[in-house]
Order: sequence, then structure tokens, then C-alpha cells
Amino acid sequence: MDIKNFRIEELENLCADIRMKIIEVLSRNGGHLSSNMGAVELTVAMHYVFDAAKDPFIFDVSHQSYTHKLLTDRWDKFDTLRQIDGISGYTKPSESPYDYFVAGHSSTSISLAVGAAKAIALKNEKDRIPVALIGDGAMSAGMAYEALNEIGDRKYPVVIMLNDNEMSISKPIGAISKYLSQAMAGQFYQKFKRRVEQLLDYLPESAVYMAKRFEEGFKLITPGMLFEELGLEYIGPIDGHNLYSLISALKTAKKLGKPVIVHAQTVKGKGYVMAEGQFEKWHGVAPFDIESGEPVKSEKAKKSATVLFSEALFNLAKENQDIVGVTAAMPSGTGMDKLIREFPDRFWDVAIAEQHAVTSMCAMAREGFKPFVAIYSTFLQRAYDQIIHDACLMNLGVVFAIDRAGIVGEDGETHQGVFDISYLNAIPNMTIFAPRDEIGMKYAVEFAYAHNGTCAFRYPRGSFGSCGDIKSKPFLLGKGEILHEGKSGIAFIGYGNGVGRAYECAKLLGGDITIVDLRFVKPIDKKLLKKLADTCKRWYIFSDSAKRGGVGEILAGFLSEEGINGVTITSFEYDDNFIRHGNTEKVEESLELLPCQLAKKIKLSNH
Amino acid sequence: MDIKNFRIEELENLCADIRMKIIEVLSRNGGHLSSNMGAVELTVAMHYVFDAAKDPFIFDVSHQSYTHKLLTDRWDKFDTLRQIDGISGYTKPSESPYDYFVAGHSSTSISLAVGAAKAIALKNEKDRIPVALIGDGAMSAGMAYEALNEIGDRKYPVVIMLNDNEMSISKPIGAISKYLSQAMAGQFYQKFKRRVEQLLDYLPESAVYMAKRFEEGFKLITPGMLFEELGLEYIGPIDGHNLYSLISALKTAKKLGKPVIVHAQTVKGKGYVMAEGQFEKWHGVAPFDIESGEPVKSEKAKKSATVLFSEALFNLAKENQDIVGVTAAMPSGTGMDKLIREFPDRFWDVAIAEQHAVTSMCAMAREGFKPFVAIYSTFLQRAYDQIIHDACLMNLGVVFAIDRAGIVGEDGETHQGVFDISYLNAIPNMTIFAPRDEIGMKYAVEFAYAHNGTCAFRYPRGSFGSCGDIKSKPFLLGKGEILHEGKSGIAFIGYGNGVGRAYECAKLLGGDITIVDLRFVKPIDKKLLKKLADTCKRWYIFSDSAKRGGVGEILAGFLSEEGINGVTITSFEYDDNFIRHGNTEKVEESLELLPCQLAKKIKLSNH
Repeated sequence: MDIKNFRIEELENLCADIRMKIIEVLSRNGGHLSSNMGAVELTVAMHYVFDAAKDPFIFDVSHQSYTHKLLTDRWDKFDTLRQIDGISGYTKPSESPYDYFVAGHSSTSISLAVGAAKAIALKNEKDRIPVALIGDGAMSAGMAYEALNEIGDRKYPVVIMLNDNEMSISKPIGAISKYLSQAMAGQFYQKFKRRVEQLLDYLPESAVYMAKRFEEGFKLITPGMLFEELGLEYIGPIDGHNLYSLISALKTAKKLGKPVIVHAQTVKGKGYVMAEGQFEKWHGVAPFDIESGEPVKSEKAKKSATVLFSEALFNLAKENQDIVGVTAAMPSGTGMDKLIREFPDRFWDVAIAEQHAVTSMCAMAREGFKPFVAIYSTFLQRAYDQIIHDACLMNLGVVFAIDRAGIVGEDGETHQGVFDISYLNAIPNMTIFAPRDEIGMKYAVEFAYAHNGTCAFRYPRGSFGSCGDIKSKPFLLGKGEILHEGKSGIAFIGYGNGVGRAYECAKLLGGDITIVDLRFVKPIDKKLLKKLADTCKRWYIFSDSAKRGGVGEILAGFLSEEGINGVTITSFEYDDNFIRHGNTEKVEESLELLPCQLAKKIKLSNH
Repeated sequence: MDIKNFRIEELENLCADIRMKIIEVLSRNGGHLSSNMGAVELTVAMHYVFDAAKDPFIFDVSHQSYTHKLLTDRWDKFDTLRQIDGISGYTKPSESPYDYFVAGHSSTSISLAVGAAKAIALKNEKDRIPVALIGDGAMSAGMAYEALNEIGDRKYPVVIMLNDNEMSISKPIGAISKYLSQAMAGQFYQKFKRRVEQLLDYLPESAVYMAKRFEEGFKLITPGMLFEELGLEYIGPIDGHNLYSLISALKTAKKLGKPVIVHAQTVKGKGYVMAEGQFEKWHGVAPFDIESGEPVKSEKAKKSATVLFSEALFNLAKENQDIVGVTAAMPSGTGMDKLIREFPDRFWDVAIAEQHAVTSMCAMAREGFKPFVAIYSTFLQRAYDQIIHDACLMNLGVVFAIDRAGIVGEDGETHQGVFDISYLNAIPNMTIFAPRDEIGMKYAVEFAYAHNGTCAFRYPRGSFGSCGDIKSKPFLLGKGEILHEGKSGIAFIGYGNGVGRAYECAKLLGGDITIVDLRFVKPIDKKLLKKLADTCKRWYIFSDSAKRGGVGEILAGFLSEEGINGVTITSFEYDDNFIRHGNTEKVEESLELLPCQLAKKIKLSNH
């Protein structure tokens, strides 16, 4: 959409249309409501002042890129948002030439802008400039700072629009957040004023009159000092819903030829009264009724694994004062919110800061506490080095509770939790296991608490599958469980949420199939598996994880190491591709991983 | 050593003794010279004011912990520094109760201090306080900032001693470094003065006299503003070689009951005239002659893999303007220094900032450049998420040149490069390969340049092994190489530096053993391996990598997937333990991985 010649009123009307479109589509499809409603004017102003066809438009996390999508040829397709074969909830270059980069994880935008600026300088393309849109929440992650550290020194021309809504996904945390809100609330001026008042003692007359004149001056120079000290220019704070101010600030920023922060104040959920100013609730929403704001469907038959984890940990933490815990800006997503509320001295949200979350808990373990680190599988990748270097090297009793393991649905390829088994398995001292059902989660939390060393357990988004009447027993280190001993010579080996699928698949197939819950991939139950190899020569693996380095390969490695021949392994884990977005079941169907599809494959391979 | 009752002169004498000891032992054993010489007074003052038996002493990276070791019962053992069975070059709780935590990677100390402070608060141990010693270089890493962000908000009592020698391993980089040196050089005062001078326009009379009085005031309040804005108290800058100042500052800091930065200025190499004020050269040294400062041994028969990489990339970059590159504070360690010097617009050191290094290069790849990211295997763990999310997801043509793969020797367990195959193999779109010899490195760089997509290749610290007269050929995607086709039914499959060991081992054994250079672990050469499985039923794997997720498991997974039975795999990769420090050959000997030891194992298993 070419909006370069629009008058301001036309742009304002456009903003209203965009908001209606977003509310309307999200009420049906779900999605990131608050952040997109808050960023409408910012994005329109970006498109007015810059050119997405040539300037790199870099959306941090890119969950707030809906307006950008609507402005760049995706208005008509927007009702397929987040659906399978529909448009993604994040920027995606394969979807549109206007999407510069993939994003989904936080705080990559400034680094990308630095790289783009280096490229532009080398190519001497003077009419291009990278524009990054980043929220205040994303500023807490270390990599944003690493990028600022380089750009503040090397001074590449880059415009960073700081979308400051005083909250990331949940309540804002940390000094940088406080710093920003102080700058806006004028408290910062006050602090600064006190400093200069101390100075006034050095002056001959420290009159009230002078102090007053000082105050006016402070407002001109102070709020951006933190950024300016890091070597960036600073414009702001400005009203992020006022197109006049935004356009004028961005035009100034564009001309500077230096790295510049444009600090815009916005209201999350702006324009939808239910969501305005709300914290976490309206961040990512399921389909809802526009009038009431209530979720449309409430077929909450089973508790989610997250809720089960939260309840189990809560009950255990009530009894055991040595249990502490942390999450990284996902308090309600991980169920840690309840614990943070009830035990504020023992459970923390440390903002988008996975590295720090892990390492700070390692020190607590060193001090004799038992920390639970609850982070999504995909985000735990950010703390890989810390898991190795700070937890496992000393075999500290840190527990990694890995939420969102497996396919996560509509968030798609940047969010799938498929690599954790592969990347954790290589680390010495790490114990890795998984519950398969509701009671199993309780046992998992209890086992982790009692376990003497580093351990990790994974569980899916949504609820567990079912193995009929066969409920989990308590975990024993390195011990698997045989759910059914069949006579067919075929074994279905499930891990975590895969066990339910194995069970269902076996039911569909009939036949007398042995069903095993592996429970541990590290250490594996060698005794059980050796015995299994005697009776079953065909093993099928069911697990929500990547094939490469996954359960199947671990078992193949075991058989090979033990010199056990004659067993064939067929793994129904994920092939070596990134997995697209869409309703989880539909995505699984497209990968031919539904129990009915798997059953067919096994039948076929029998003939 | 109890130094609490020492007089200052006694402490000064102690410092002199410590320096002599360090020079003397390092001249024989090698080690981190400059940083330890620079931190003598800091550490003595820490021990004077705090108590290592109860206060958590947290050394960032901990390469500067020699003085601490000498003060805590390791004076006599200090001549075993970095040797096998000797004391570690880093802090290590299993070595001494005075070593609070393992470190070796940068920038974990503030997070650890936060965790320790949380634990101390919960336990209500009012007489304990965490003390972290961190260099200015380590302040560039994101996780330091993540920790500051929490502590500045939550205000746990922690003393952070900032050892500011205006250099990390190499020259200081980034805005934070500049900020610190500005604070010290007084330039910051100047900048601040200009700001306030602008204010003076608001005042009735802006006299020279007032400006002068202002200037005096600035010095009292300004240098720590960046930290104070982040919510920390600030003391400094102080002379880090003056025990009076240090002790007095630390006493003040200890009493504050808040998070405080004590900013001390030191000279790297202080006390050894050859090293004083030198940048990278004297950071980590090999044994040297004390008088001349020259390295003792110069048996440089073969070029190191690092030098080969540097030369190959340099030659290619001369011809191809689209080649760019980055390293993260390891310019000479990776051989990127030469390229940064020759092509300063195309090659960068971005400081200790692996995450930013990777993601910024991803944007350059998006812009059509071919970035080479040269990082040690162990440090690349810090950028795991970025490799997945920013490089591989879009299959961008970023090349990861992984130095220090395998056992690195004296640096020991925190630095071993053993996990990279395991953690990279799970990532879709990633191509993984390795050169085995000198000419192979040139081909590896050329292949990586030409390859259309993300790829990674690894190479060892030191020089490659040898396969006699059989030199590498150019790389072909997914193609292995049979070096010798034997008739014994036994195959030695080598990968990277493991090929040389396989060759040597085969030579020792005699017999007609088939020798394969796998070259690629992703994608593997299925055709070659299938053929191999026809003629050789016993496969032995030689690779400097972890067994778990390593080459052997990858091949076992392949055989299993292909339904190939009857082949046994024995992997001579590393067992599932962290690997200790010491001379590389001695460490390999202790792991029974020397060719002569392996040959024996194979003979034994034949009978």
C-alpha cells in the first residue's frame, strides 16, 4: 500500500481500519493482540518515512508485525493469520519480499540492524537505512546490549524505534525498564535534579529561582543519557500514538546519519478497550468474543501440562523451603506466576534473560537450594552454554522444566520445541526424562526435587495424551516402564508425550504390541532395552523431538555400543526440517504423524 | 594465608612475592600472565577486607585467580599449575573449598553473585556478601548486562570489583569500554561539563567562575552515572595497585548493603616490564625466558590449524570482496587479526559477544555477503540459539569456522571443544564437515565459500595429524573419501583431526585396514557407507568429539535407519565426562586415546 502521499487524517483513518481488521481477525484466529494494537501508528509512521522495499525493516520478535503485513500486500490474506498454509504470525521472507528477516525470539533486531548497516556501508548504498522496532521488554536481553555496545562505538547509521509500553509480555522487570519509566514519568528528572542541587552548593547563591530554571533545562538533556553514554543519539520520549510527532521524529532520525534511538511511549492494546493497559492477559490470545472479550471456546476438558507442573511445584514448594525457581519473562506461560505471587522471596521472573536466569540459579544450587528453571524448549537454546558451563560442570542440582516441548502450533517454526533432547543429551552429568500423563507430572517434579544432580524434563504445550487406565508410577533413576507386554515381536517405545501416541496407535492397529514408556533418555534403561531386544526385533519410536540426536538415534547408539544386532528401529520423530505453523493437529497431520497415519505406515511396512 | 592482621607494608611485600612466584612458575608452565600480574593488589585487598571462607569470591572467567590460589593453601602446589594432576588455571571447587565456583567462560560472575545474594538473603546470613571480580572486557557480554539489570532493580547487596585495564584479551572494543576509559581519562567529565554548560544558558549569569566550580563538582558525581542509572552504587575510579585506596573502597562497599561497583584502574602485566601495557601478546603465554621474555621452545615444525585457516581465508578474501567475517574477542586466537588489520571494513572483532557476532553476520548474509564467523567450539555454545534462529532457519550462507575443536590442553574442562558436532547436527539446513590436513583446510575454506547455505567446519588447537603421503582432495558436498581400501573387513572411519589418528593407528596395527575420511557428518555419504557396510563389518570411529550425539551415534543412526544389520561400531570419541586439564597428549593418554593405546584395544578385541 503506498501511503507516502497520504495526509495525516488519511493515515489516522488507515490506523483505525487496521485496528478493526486486527480485532476482527484475531477474534477468530487468536494472536498477539495488545502489542499489535499498540504498534499501529509506529508502523504506519515507519512506512511513511522509510521504504520497506529497500530499507531493512526489522521487527524485534516480530509478533507486532501485523500492521506491517497489512500494509504490504497481505490485507486480503490476513484472515488466514497463523493458520496452516496461511500467513505467519511473524515476519517471514519466504512469505513476502517486504519481510526482511525471520524473527520469533526476542532481541535480535539491533544485531540484525548492525549487520545490515555494515552491508549497506560496504555496498555504498547511501539511500538505505535499517530501521528496527523493539519493545522495552526486549531491551532486557543481553544480546540487545551486545549490539548497542558495538553500534555505539562504530556509529553505523541505524534507526532504533523503542516501543515503550512499560511492559513486555508480563510486568516490566529490571533496571532498564525502571530507567525507561523513570525517564517518562519525570522521576528521572527529579533524581538528576537532586544531583545538580548538590552541585549548587559549590555555587555562590543556590536560589530557588535558579533551581527552577535548571529543571526546565534538565528536560531537554536528560532522559536519553543512558543511551547517549553508550554512544547513541536519542530522541524522545514522544507519544507513540501521535502520527505528527512520530513522523517528525523519524524524519529527524533518518537524516542524522548516526545510530539513534527514537523512544516512543505507547499503550498496549490501544483502541480495544478490553485490552488497553492490561498486562499479560491480552498479549497472546485465543479466539474471543469482540463484545465481551471472553474466549470463544471453553472446552477445557483436561488440564494443560503447564498447569499440572505449576500445581505440582506449588505443592512441593509449600512443604520444602529449599525449592526456589525462576522464569525468563514467561510467568503465566510456564505457570510460575502462581509461585512468584505466593513465594516472592523464592521465585523470580528475571525478564528476557535466559542466560542470567540459569546461571543465577546455579549459584543458588551451590548454596544448597533446589532451583527449578522453567523455560520453553525453544528459548532454553539461549542458555545452552550456561547449562553446560554453570550447571552441569559442577553437577549442581538445578532442574530444567522444559515447557512447550514438541510442536507448539500457531507460533510456528521459530517456536517449535524440537531440539532439546539433542542438545542436552551430549552434556555430561545431565539427567533427562519426561512424564507422559497427569500424575506423571507430579512424579516428575518430585523426582527432580529428590535427584542429586542436574536434570531436565520436558512436557508439551497443551495437555498430555492418554494411555487409558495405565497411569504412571513414580520415577526411578534410569528406569523405563513396560505398559504392555505383547507377543507380536513389535515394540512401540514412547517418550514423554509420545507414549500416549504410541498407545493410541497400538489400539488402532490391534495386534499384540509391546508398549514401553522409556521415561529416561539419559541414562537409558539398558536392562529393560536388552530384554526388549530379545523379544522384539522391530522397534518404533514415538517422541515429539527431532530425529537427529533424538530418541531413535540414542537407542541406535545404544544397540550399536552393546553390539546388539538384528533389531530395526523406525523413528516417528521429526524429520530434519523446520516445522511450519498452524493448528498442532493439522501440522502433525501434514507431517503424517497422527496415530491413524502412523498406524497405516506400520501396517504397510508389514506387508 | 591469614593476612587480616598484616600491615600495609607487609601486604605490599606479599604482593611482590606473589608477582615473583607467578612470573617464575609461568615462565615454566605458561598461563595467563598479564591479567594475573594486574590483579595482585585487587585480590589481596579482597582477601583483606572479605573472607573467602564464607563470602562467595567469584572470579569472572577466573583466569586471573592465581593470587587467590596462592593465598588459599596452594602456594606450594602452584608449580603444578595447568599440568595434568596439577592445579587448574581456573577456580575449581573440587580443588579447594575457597574456590566458590567453576569458571572459564566470560561474564558469568554477576549472575552468580545475584544467585548467591538471593541465597544469602533467604538464609538470612547477614555476615556474608558475594564479591565478584570482573574485567572491563567481560562487561561487553550480554549476560553481564542481564545480571546488572536484575540487581540494579532488586538491590541485593553485592560488591562488584571492576578490574579496568582498558583491554580484555585484545584491544578494548565497544561503547562500554569507551565509556569506562572516558570516565577515567576525564573526557567524560568534559562531555558532562558541556551538557551543564548548555544548562547555564538558563541561568542569569553564566560566569567562568561558576563553570570552574561546577567542574569540581562533576568529578564527585559523574563517572559512575551509567551504573547508577542502572541502579547500582558506584565507587571510583581508584588506583587498582594502591592497597590503601583499594582496602578503603572495599570497606566502604562492604558496609553499603546495596549492589555496588568498585571501579579500579589497573595495568595489565604490572610488575613484569616485558608485559606491562601490552595487549594480546602477554594474555596467555607459553613457557618463556624471564630475562628476554622470549618463548622457550620454538619447535614449530608444523603450522597450526588456526594459521592455516587464517592464511586460506586471507587469500580467498583478497580475491572475493563479498567475504566478510567476525570474531568475538579472540582475534589472534582465531587468526582473524590478520584479516581485521588488512580489511578493516570487512572483518570485525565485536568483543565478548558471541550472540551478537552471529546474528549481525546473518544480516550481512541476507544482504548478499559471505560471512565467516570464527569462534572456538566451546564459546560457540553461547550463540546456539542464534545459529538456529538467525542463520539456519533461513539457511543463510553463514560459515562457522570452529577453532579449538577437541581437547585444548591446559585450559581444561571449561574450554574443551567436544560438543559442537552434537549440538549442530540437530539443526536443519546445517552442513557440517571437517578438514584433516593442511591442504584440506584450504579446501574447507573454499568449499564453505562456495556452499549455498549455512555450514560449519571444525579444526583442532595446534596442528593436524598426518596421513603420510595421502593428501586431501577438494571437498564435494556430502562426499567422504576412502584413503585405503583394505581386505581385513575392518574399517577405520576418521573425521577431521581424527583421520590422522586413524591412519597412525592402522600403521601401528599393520593388517590391511580400510581407512575412510568421512569429511561430512551432515549430510553423510550414504553411498560410500552402504558400500563400506558390504565389505567391512567392524567400524572404528576416530573423532575429537563427544560420543553422545557424535560421529559414532550418527553412523549408528544411519545404519538403523537404512536397516543395515551386522555392522558393529566402536567409537573412540570421548566418553560422557568433562575432560580435565593438562598437556593434550597426556590428557589423551589418560583417556587411553593415543594411537598406540587404541591399537592395543583393537588387537585385544580381535582375540
